[in-house]
Amino acid sequence: MSERVRVAVLGHGVVGRGVAELLTRPQNGVAAAKFGREPELGAVLDIRDFPDAPYSRLFARSFDDILADESIAVFAETIGGVRAAYDYTKRALAAGRHVVTSNKELVSTHGASLLRLARERNVNYMFEASVGGGIPVIRPLARSFAADRITAVSGILNGTTNFVLTKMAEDGRSMLAALDEARERGYAEADPSDDMEGKDTCRKIAILASLAFGRHIYPKYIPTFGISYITAAHIAQAAALGCAIKLLGRAGLREDGLTDIITAPFLVPFSHPFCAVRDVYNAVFITADRAGDVMLYGRGAGREPTASAVLADIYDCVRHIAQSVSVLWEDTKADITAAGAPDGARYAEFPDGSKMRYLPT
Amino acid sequence: MSERVRVAVLGHGVVGRGVAELLTRPQNGVAAAKFGREPELGAVLDIRDFPDAPYSRLFARSFDDILADESIAVFAETIGGVRAAYDYTKRALAAGRHVVTSNKELVSTHGASLLRLARERNVNYMFEASVGGGIPVIRPLARSFAADRITAVSGILNGTTNFVLTKMAEDGRSMLAALDEARERGYAEADPSDDMEGKDTCRKIAILASLAFGRHIYPKYIPTFGISYITAAHIAQAAALGCAIKLLGRAGLREDGLTDIITAPFLVPFSHPFCAVRDVYNAVFITADRAGDVMLYGRGAGREPTASAVLADIYDCVRHIAQSVSVLWEDTKADITAAGAPDGARYAEFPDGSKMRYLPT
Repeated sequence: MSERVRVAVLGHGVVGRGVAELLTRPQNGVAAAKFGREPELGAVLDIRDFPDAPYSRLFARSFDDILADESIAVFAETIGGVRAAYDYTKRALAAGRHVVTSNKELVSTHGASLLRLARERNVNYMFEASVGGGIPVIRPLARSFAADRITAVSGILNGTTNFVLTKMAEDGRSMLAALDEARERGYAEADPSDDMEGKDTCRKIAILASLAFGRHIYPKYIPTFGISYITAAHIAQAAALGCAIKLLGRAGLREDGLTDIITAPFLVPFSHPFCAVRDVYNAVFITADRAGDVMLYGRGAGREPTASAVLADIYDCVRHIAQSVSVLWEDTKADITAAGAPDGARYAEFPDGSKMRYLPT
Repeated sequence: MSERVRVAVLGHGVVGRGVAELLTRPQNGVAAAKFGREPELGAVLDIRDFPDAPYSRLFARSFDDILADESIAVFAETIGGVRAAYDYTKRALAAGRHVVTSNKELVSTHGASLLRLARERNVNYMFEASVGGGIPVIRPLARSFAADRITAVSGILNGTTNFVLTKMAEDGRSMLAALDEARERGYAEADPSDDMEGKDTCRKIAILASLAFGRHIYPKYIPTFGISYITAAHIAQAAALGCAIKLLGRAGLREDGLTDIITAPFLVPFSHPFCAVRDVYNAVFITADRAGDVMLYGRGAGREPTASAVLADIYDCVRHIAQSVSVLWEDTKADITAAGAPDGARYAEFPDGSKMRYLPT
């Protein structure tokens, strides 16, 4: 008999439901076979009723009740935002429980202090699902470059905008037609402004840069530009320069220790692997002193890929039930980003007067 | 003061030297800052003399002497082959020491039993550097899909052959001219037959498939075809079909539990991300039930990327100094591969009578 590790899912939305279902499906025994411990669903927090869920008896409306149940060892926070999610995460960690999350807003805003709290309490705070959906990004960045120095990290981090730019470039759609198609397919929210204006990408590159460079970089310090001004003419002009237009979050480490970091449309040469990242796919490109260029590619969003990433973190907590192995980064609480463009940045000027940066290669 | 964990490097060749240098460079303190423990070079095994190495006083010629030094907690095996490397690895694990390796031949031949031995002795046997150089592959496959089911894994796993095929396709070189250029740049061995005939790729896909499907797949059961018969005419005909020719190792899980596994040139549609993998770059493409398609891309060989991967494993051992977290897979000692082509495989026939499989998408 393997030991059961009880998990509470906080929030029964798209991702939370996916996590609860994965935890309750039969034959979920990989971890048990390997480590003698296996996660099981212990509680679900939501103020709504879900009488038809097969685990309906596990629903609770009070976080306090779940926290008081000392058999719950791991909390999976899929609420989103920085209000209840922040409060619950702090209290769970302070009580010596592990927390895993898909909440990019919370990690990019309060990651440093939550990671510090987890370390102090000898538990884990893990957030693989916060960036890149089902793509292994956070764990490779944290573990696989342990003996290396990362000098730059950039990413196609938002599926909606990448879908729109792909359809404009490949099928000659207008931006509005491409956005309509994204909505029809369920790739875009009713209000896509967080995606289109780069806010979603900004939060994600903030997390990746904090991890890569070991110091918390706050989204509010990152210059952020979206794609809503892009027209077919820009895309045609970019193609004439041998480039595609991709919305990137990009962070580079400078000699002076500051970080060049920006969210903006970039000109990406057709020969760059980013140009093979089409439709709703995402990718993260890492440059390290020794490993060289590494790219991690896959489905950046969606219920199943994201729930799968949350589960991978739950298994990692189960494996490290008595050990704090989650990352740690400094919190200077200051702006450690460089103002303006880096030396040597190359731009193309468009006939409408707009300028666009080339991706440094 | 952080605790020092002493590491012995076995073999002072290209990779071993890179590992020894990384372990002795100043300011290698990432792990110390994070975990209170830091690796340091404790011994180097080689029968040759290296009087000019800054760590020359650490050289030893007897494995027995190093094993007898109980302060050595981790062995980095970079000898290669299955003779001395196998003997030393078994003895180190049996003595309760961690072993990390870049040795694909050893892992693909004896991985199951060595991993079992490591688990029994509560130590780790890690092999991130055996496939894909500096690309994080082994750890993501082992950890990030813990709650998912991998149904197929394929890879461009050999830099020499990918360089040759890229130069033939993009610059119109003949195979021999491309191979000469690879040799000049140091990408190909004097005798490139293991690369060109697919043997190197075969060992690597054997390791990836064993990891993905949880059972040891022996290289001897994998049908293996190389690229030496490929001509400019094949490449032009493939292009007319909208495809590039790539040498792939590919393994898919069948409903009956057997594995379709092969090393061969494949027709890959230009829209597939594999086509962005050029020159000496490598990539591994994973299909999982929930995460969907994931690709991991980077420099698949070379001293620095490979040494960096060995170091990442050393840090992982340092982190898990008292816990066995390395993977485990079954050893049926039998052929669990499917004979012949899978149902539904699509082929193109070339005017010279040769056939080539399309990459299933």
